Amino acid sequence: MILNQDAKSHDYSKIAQIFRPGHGDITYQAKYGIRDYRGGGRASGRETAARVAAGAVAEAFLKQYKICVQTITLEIGGVRAAKIDREFASTNYLECPDAEALLLIEQRIDDVKKEGDSLGGVLEITAHNVPAGLGEPVFDKLDADLAKALMSIGAVKAVEIGAGCKASQMTGFENNDQIIASKLASDKGSDIVTEFETNNSGGILAGISNGDDIVARVHIKPIPSILKEQMTVDINGNPCPISTQGRHDICAIPRINPVCRAMVYLVIADHLLRQKATERL
Amino acid sequence: MILNQDAKSHDYSKIAQIFRPGHGDITYQAKYGIRDYRGGGRASGRETAARVAAGAVAEAFLKQYKICVQTITLEIGGVRAAKIDREFASTNYLECPDAEALLLIEQRIDDVKKEGDSLGGVLEITAHNVPAGLGEPVFDKLDADLAKALMSIGAVKAVEIGAGCKASQMTGFENNDQIIASKLASDKGSDIVTEFETNNSGGILAGISNGDDIVARVHIKPIPSILKEQMTVDINGNPCPISTQGRHDICAIPRINPVCRAMVYLVIADHLLRQKATERL
Amino acid sequence: MILNQDAKSHDYSKIAQIFRPGHGDITYQAKYGIRDYRGGGRASGRETAARVAAGAVAEAFLKQYKICVQTITLEIGGVRAAKIDREFASTNYLECPDAEALLLIEQRIDDVKKEGDSLGGVLEITAHNVPAGLGEPVFDKLDADLAKALMSIGAVKAVEIGAGCKASQMTGFENNDQIIASKLASDKGSDIVTEFETNNSGGILAGISNGDDIVARVHIKPIPSILKEQMTVDINGNPCPISTQGRHDICAIPRINPVCRAMVYLVIADHLLRQKATERL
Amino acid sequence: MILNQDAKSHDYSKIAQIFRPGHGDITYQAKYGIRDYRGGGRASGRETAARVAAGAVAEAFLKQYKICVQTITLEIGGVRAAKIDREFASTNYLECPDAEALLLIEQRIDDVKKEGDSLGGVLEITAHNVPAGLGEPVFDKLDADLAKALMSIGAVKAVEIGAGCKASQMTGFENNDQIIASKLASDKGSDIVTEFETNNSGGILAGISNGDDIVARVHIKPIPSILKEQMTVDINGNPCPISTQGRHDICAIPRINPVCRAMVYLVIADHLLRQKATERL
Repeated sequence: MILNQDAKSHDYSKIAQIFRPGHGDITYQAKYGIRDYRGGGRASGRETAARVAAGAVAEAFLKQYKICVQTITLEIGGVRAAKIDREFASTNYLECPDAEALLLIEQRIDDVKKEGDSLGGVLEITAHNVPAGLGEPVFDKLDADLAKALMSIGAVKAVEIGAGCKASQMTGFENNDQIIASKLASDKGSDIVTEFETNNSGGILAGISNGDDIVARVHIKPIPSILKEQMTVDINGNPCPISTQGRHDICAIPRINPVCRAMVYLVIADHLLRQKATERL
Repeated sequence: MILNQDAKSHDYSKIAQIFRPGHGDITYQAKYGIRDYRGGGRASGRETAARVAAGAVAEAFLKQYKICVQTITLEIGGVRAAKIDREFASTNYLECPDAEALLLIEQRIDDVKKEGDSLGGVLEITAHNVPAGLGEPVFDKLDADLAKALMSIGAVKAVEIGAGCKASQMTGFENNDQIIASKLASDKGSDIVTEFETNNSGGILAGISNGDDIVARVHIKPIPSILKEQMTVDINGNPCPISTQGRHDICAIPRINPVCRAMVYLVIADHLLRQKATERL
Repeated sequence: MILNQDAKSHDYSKIAQIFRPGHGDITYQAKYGIRDYRGGGRASGRETAARVAAGAVAEAFLKQYKICVQTITLEIGGVRAAKIDREFASTNYLECPDAEALLLIEQRIDDVKKEGDSLGGVLEITAHNVPAGLGEPVFDKLDADLAKALMSIGAVKAVEIGAGCKASQMTGFENNDQIIASKLASDKGSDIVTEFETNNSGGILAGISNGDDIVARVHIKPIPSILKEQMTVDINGNPCPISTQGRHDICAIPRINPVCRAMVYLVIADHLLRQKATERL
Repeated sequence: MILNQDAKSHDYSKIAQIFRPGHGDITYQAKYGIRDYRGGGRASGRETAARVAAGAVAEAFLKQYKICVQTITLEIGGVRAAKIDREFASTNYLECPDAEALLLIEQRIDDVKKEGDSLGGVLEITAHNVPAGLGEPVFDKLDADLAKALMSIGAVKAVEIGAGCKASQMTGFENNDQIIASKLASDKGSDIVTEFETNNSGGILAGISNGDDIVARVHIKPIPSILKEQMTVDINGNPCPISTQGRHDICAIPRINPVCRAMVYLVIADHLLRQKATERL
């Protein structure tokens, strides 16, 4: 149980009677006929604390298999990292892998903050050392379960696996990851040891891991709670302006990064347990 | 039971000993130690026939709610539809909503076919008349279930909901769909009747439908089976060239379109049944 | 969250090194390689507090349908109630429906307590006003789900539905509940209104409720923790005597009664929600 | 797919308009507003063919663990086997372990057949060589899953585990299976090797297998379709007599025996796979 010892419910009193655009207010009202306007409902990002806690258990379990999941921030507010320096990404709180982009991003965040507006971004999640063979062939494909897990995080609006959106613009010849014999001598007896020239598949073929890095990208919408005035309606259906106060981030990054890692750890742990159940039958 | 009365297993005999790049051959071998190289395994698109059959039942059920799901082809081989004429889309087999783009696409398909290569594309799926309130708040969000359902289709490598990838580049003010009182008089008694200025949310807020159209886009990789020679390894780990014969499409579109519709029908039917169970408690 | 503010873990220190007969000590050790000997593990009856809490929610929900679940104690320590006076059962803490049997049972409990031994018993659970049509035809039959729910309660070793064990000794003619037209005029339009001469089925035919009372009986083993000395082994496999101290009941009745009611409320609520989802398609 | 090539639907035409007592006719009508009176609905024992087929796969899988499931018929029509000769049980089609009882049972079946009536009975199912540690601690206890699996078979009205109903009449001292050090030297290193003096637990303690034989008993109601005239109502609610023709057995035993074995194989296989997933974490 995680006690929220810093709740300030009164910050939300102004929105008791009105629906915040981009929020779950209006859908919770439609579904349940009631909603918690004080910031603590299940549509709040606070809910992700439980995911991170559970993900930590999965991470500890996966450590023995040397499986680890990392995130880098590819883009915030349209400013994209031009180079990928993972070392550098691990040293800044936004997990941005490009020092120059980081400066521009920090500037962009400051500017938008002054305007009372907010930003979205793009994260890349990589799972290393996932063994080949995880994922079920039809109903619970590994990529399908990753897509569900990541899309279930509040602000995520798109999920890509491997080449993702770009795969749709390549030809088969360009997109196929050509298979090469591994340079490493096999110490697994009869198992085939292969590698791939590229990783457009994102480590998943036909829903099953192929031994390469699992790569996913999520596209995160800007925080919907903004100071800038928008139009909405109140609970009586009357139009009214809204300007959301309260403690809101400008961008879900970097808070969303550990949530994404947690969800990927959980999915991989589930599939590894399923695979362990059957692999030496 | 759907009998495949047109199987030509011998077409696949050349690949009995080698792994096709971009295919499930190598992952099935890793998972099960065995695979069906003859085209009929569970990694084959043939598996989707069952999805379409089940989707037809869901479609029939949803008809009474006037819910219908439509697809249009936004892009094939990098050629994008510049205008969206749904009327026109319904008249051509590729479901392309732009007559000029269609000509270019057909040309592109012909060219690529001559090269023994293949193409991917982008589909947009829209579900009309989905009532507000479908989707569970944390574990089975409507967008999460749609993402899983669509990503579980063989060739899909990315799923977007609403503004999707673009949402990450907008500010909160730009991305939020401002809420307006409906011009229609409410005949639902105390229910609030609202509309949205835009539909960047894709009809889903906080995992629950908001009454607007549900909009998803899927990015489809090019067919991996190509005549053009690629490099791979055989089951003994020796490098060898591969040129895939057999009856393969150039592009999964338009065959994949009814599969996407079926999966969306199934997800909506499931959530509508869940909602019906609880809505008048 | 239910805090246990009366834990006395030190009462259990003597059994840290030995396995109690009839307990989960030895199976938890086998499964997990570790166990909680202090009385608070998941094999403890304490776990049922959560079931009763959840059952209370189901009960509140089912109230609007006038569904209520009652228990009576048919037997303790081999002493069986000869007459069924439900009024009387509701006035004594053992829920025994027979005043004479109650006296004998209380005597039996006292005697057994002096011997440092314990007793089991038999409960009958009746659910009133369950509408016809609940239960799924193959995978989640109503009686199958009730059997699982009731057998999952720690001390339960047998579950009967309707005539139960006795059904196996009757002929078809004796066991079949003959169907009669209801004396009540139907106010449901075209619905058939029937009643049954008897209720050997326990209100369930082919896994689906028939509108009659749902009747189940559970057979409860005696509390395994007894003062009387038994033989067992310690964690090193050496034989040793055991005499279990601590606060243990002589009989799981009447504490188990609300747990049984809770499980039946939960199963009926689940099936009613499933049925509501589909009944007006 | 199992084709029924011996269907005689016309045999059932007389019951198109009337409800058979003891059958699912009336509950299917209540649930779905429609039913298949021709003997082939999901309430028919024909449905169990799929269970037996699936159970055969589970049996083949469990063979490597030397797990095998056996049934004996303890009782038919109230005639109980006085002695348990498993050898003999394997030689007669009723799986009766007592030659004398068998003669009486065969006589009883003949007599009842002449009266146009039917019989029930009691089966005991034993699973040998099930390792300790199978079963989940709260939600999917091994005994709970067995109870659901067995109660889901059409004619089963009661399920006992181990001492079952008798456990409720014993004292704790009598019912507890005292634990003894195994006579076999342990070759498992640090694992404790124990045995039990008795098997009142039926091989399951706190929902988890203890390494002893898993023992369950099912009580089977008499076949409800009987030639003897009963009273019922027709679909218009009018009283009418019924005498069921068609090819009906007198007793579900021995046809139900392989179904019970199949269900136990399936439950054990499921739990063994779950346990394999986690046991060497």
